[in-house]
Amino acid sequence: MLEELKKKVYEANMLLPKYKLVTFTWGNVSAIDRETGLFVIKPSGVDYEMMKPEDMVVVDMDGKVVEGKYKPSSDTPTHLKLYKDFKDIGGIVHTHSRYATIFAQAGKGIIPYGTTQADYFYNEIPCTRNMTSEEISNEYEYNTGGVIVETFSKLNPVHVPAVLVKNHGPFSWGKDALDAVHNAVVLEEVAMMALNTELLSNHNANRMPQDLIEKHFMRKHGPNAYYGQG
Amino acid sequence: MLEELKKKVYEANMLLPKYKLVTFTWGNVSAIDRETGLFVIKPSGVDYEMMKPEDMVVVDMDGKVVEGKYKPSSDTPTHLKLYKDFKDIGGIVHTHSRYATIFAQAGKGIIPYGTTQADYFYNEIPCTRNMTSEEISNEYEYNTGGVIVETFSKLNPVHVPAVLVKNHGPFSWGKDALDAVHNAVVLEEVAMMALNTELLSNHNANRMPQDLIEKHFMRKHGPNAYYGQG
Amino acid sequence: MLEELKKKVYEANMLLPKYKLVTFTWGNVSAIDRETGLFVIKPSGVDYEMMKPEDMVVVDMDGKVVEGKYKPSSDTPTHLKLYKDFKDIGGIVHTHSRYATIFAQAGKGIIPYGTTQADYFYNEIPCTRNMTSEEISNEYEYNTGGVIVETFSKLNPVHVPAVLVKNHGPFSWGKDALDAVHNAVVLEEVAMMALNTELLSNHNANRMPQDLIEKHFMRKHGPNAYYGQG
Amino acid sequence: MLEELKKKVYEANMLLPKYKLVTFTWGNVSAIDRETGLFVIKPSGVDYEMMKPEDMVVVDMDGKVVEGKYKPSSDTPTHLKLYKDFKDIGGIVHTHSRYATIFAQAGKGIIPYGTTQADYFYNEIPCTRNMTSEEISNEYEYNTGGVIVETFSKLNPVHVPAVLVKNHGPFSWGKDALDAVHNAVVLEEVAMMALNTELLSNHNANRMPQDLIEKHFMRKHGPNAYYGQG
Repeated sequence: MLEELKKKVYEANMLLPKYKLVTFTWGNVSAIDRETGLFVIKPSGVDYEMMKPEDMVVVDMDGKVVEGKYKPSSDTPTHLKLYKDFKDIGGIVHTHSRYATIFAQAGKGIIPYGTTQADYFYNEIPCTRNMTSEEISNEYEYNTGGVIVETFSKLNPVHVPAVLVKNHGPFSWGKDALDAVHNAVVLEEVAMMALNTELLSNHNANRMPQDLIEKHFMRKHGPNAYYGQG
Repeated sequence: MLEELKKKVYEANMLLPKYKLVTFTWGNVSAIDRETGLFVIKPSGVDYEMMKPEDMVVVDMDGKVVEGKYKPSSDTPTHLKLYKDFKDIGGIVHTHSRYATIFAQAGKGIIPYGTTQADYFYNEIPCTRNMTSEEISNEYEYNTGGVIVETFSKLNPVHVPAVLVKNHGPFSWGKDALDAVHNAVVLEEVAMMALNTELLSNHNANRMPQDLIEKHFMRKHGPNAYYGQG
Repeated sequence: MLEELKKKVYEANMLLPKYKLVTFTWGNVSAIDRETGLFVIKPSGVDYEMMKPEDMVVVDMDGKVVEGKYKPSSDTPTHLKLYKDFKDIGGIVHTHSRYATIFAQAGKGIIPYGTTQADYFYNEIPCTRNMTSEEISNEYEYNTGGVIVETFSKLNPVHVPAVLVKNHGPFSWGKDALDAVHNAVVLEEVAMMALNTELLSNHNANRMPQDLIEKHFMRKHGPNAYYGQG
Repeated sequence: MLEELKKKVYEANMLLPKYKLVTFTWGNVSAIDRETGLFVIKPSGVDYEMMKPEDMVVVDMDGKVVEGKYKPSSDTPTHLKLYKDFKDIGGIVHTHSRYATIFAQAGKGIIPYGTTQADYFYNEIPCTRNMTSEEISNEYEYNTGGVIVETFSKLNPVHVPAVLVKNHGPFSWGKDALDAVHNAVVLEEVAMMALNTELLSNHNANRMPQDLIEKHFMRKHGPNAYYGQG
């Protein structure tokens, strides 16, 4: 069943350690077949090194496992909720990638600071609100999808293909599994640079002495340069 | 003696350089056999590249070497004290892993900021108090274990499987040597993100101009996109 | 046409992933043949892993493609403008390398803090001004070159072989493609250290207790040292 | 001449890229033979990949090249001055390693914050004063050695085997070339952690909600845990 899609989801999952987006088993990728309404997702807590394409789990839009010898990722209900409400997406990635998670932990969205972000995200990458105790105690993972959808009530998820779940970590998506992973990589890069942009904007230091600049530039590039064998 | 356990302790020690938790010989792993009351620990100052399973040292609960051609790790009395007081643990790891050590050096516990931490630690990862001059000058390593135990007087070490020794570095533990290393990896990841969460929470920067966002998103995704070969 | 130059430009482009200056296809290198007034540049959006020397595109000083089966980099007009105004340069590199981009995002030039910078840059590495809405909406990439040239109205581009384009990223250059890449690597290194110099200059922490220093130094180096097997 | 020592100096130099302490050719190692009063040092500006043991240069205590087809490192007079005044050292390393250089650029010594430093350095790792214009313009490299020696007027260089030259970078030393490299690695590690200790000590963030901790710890470790396949 959906052998081609399972292979693609498997391959997309295997990109997470390659791009250093996951530690141990802390991440999952899924992709949906919109015709049948079935999606394929990584099994829960299985090592990347042991995982095979046929280990992927097929789930229907009620969250029931249709095929697969393993339990699906514990985050499956979050994926389900996103596929239900974000009709134009075909793949979803969840990781605890370091810099995106740092923004989630600080409860801050990623404000656009540069064209690297604007090349992919038409706006701030938002951070969800705190979940209520009720949302946490019952159907926590499905409700996680719910607060994401709520966060996008006035945003087009195709124009902003990622979110930070507060005190948790990022979800990203795309037209298929591979595209969702691509956006997860961009998100991490953008988060790393945004964090440091915020730090840099608030600090200064003392310039070095002018005569030392003079000396070093000239000993390499001046008329009497004496660095190297030239 | 305890050949199986020596092999496991050896393998757990070899994971420390693999996960980039140690520089040179700055780390050690041990594991205890609760039936015989003997534990196996890395020899002191031996290179990871030269180390073999049979080099592991067997120590009894009085701290005496029962078997082994090398001296045991200089931190052996700390391990001993922890095995005595934390009855439910089976393996211990000590490293100077960078981010956990940074918290130890700042004398700060790691406050829970995200679910990555909460998945493993039920609470703040505490930092021990300053040791007294007496504790430092006599049986320093054993007393290091003592202040750790004191720090956990109201905490369950199984629920919080790591500690930061002030101005020194982390100890972590688990049900066996491998589990203790797993927790050491998680601790380092959590520390890296907690540090940056604290920095990020205190800084902001200026958003980029809106027309530049417009331009970059649209040159890649708009109706007249002209990036790439498509 | 220009087969030798194409090979050099190809090889220079392949150094960008090697030095970890690019993610995906976010970078490009070009080089000019001053005799014919033609320059060779990377094609737009082509994977580094698939790229071959013959994929390089030859462009003339009116920005027209003279040879090549691919579209040239979308940043080609920026390169063109720089070759026109900076008569003494032979190669140009554009990347979104992390630390240089962070300075661009913060809108800050890189003040000289150390001899690593002074060995290559005779002055602050400047950041361009905000572009106007007009400059962004029409001939954006050519105008990007224009603001760079404007920024160097009183600077010799041979003495300061790089610039930060505000909210975007760095351009660097040199006597040929390879030299431009060399300067891109130096720029990233210098940016990483400048950022942290600014952070470090504004923060302090508490020294560790003296008796703990005493203990640790002496247990390794004192007359009664007991670390290691010696 | 001194073939054995050349081989050791060559091997110590090759460790610099291995430990990621240098970019391009920005580093050099030397070692002295105290009996003959000759020292062996890396040639200036030669790529690590091309370098061979026989390329090492032999220099006497007047700074004259005694043997070698290449020019010695441009920092040779600094090494010379240190060998003259620090009688108990046998090897010297100079790099622009990132974190140590950041401290040099900020003009700050590295205060002891943890036992990683105290295991090797009995005190603060000092930063030199600004050099005067005279010191910079005449015999700059020899005078660099002079300000280092001046900085150690009340410090034992064997107890503090490294220094930060202001706005430049670190020098470290040891009983031989290999020991000096070992200390250069420790210095970089200690600098990385000290910088972040200072940042961390000045920032805090908000704890995550308690119910979210509860949920995540329990879904992995509680009686009704549902993470993984167990």
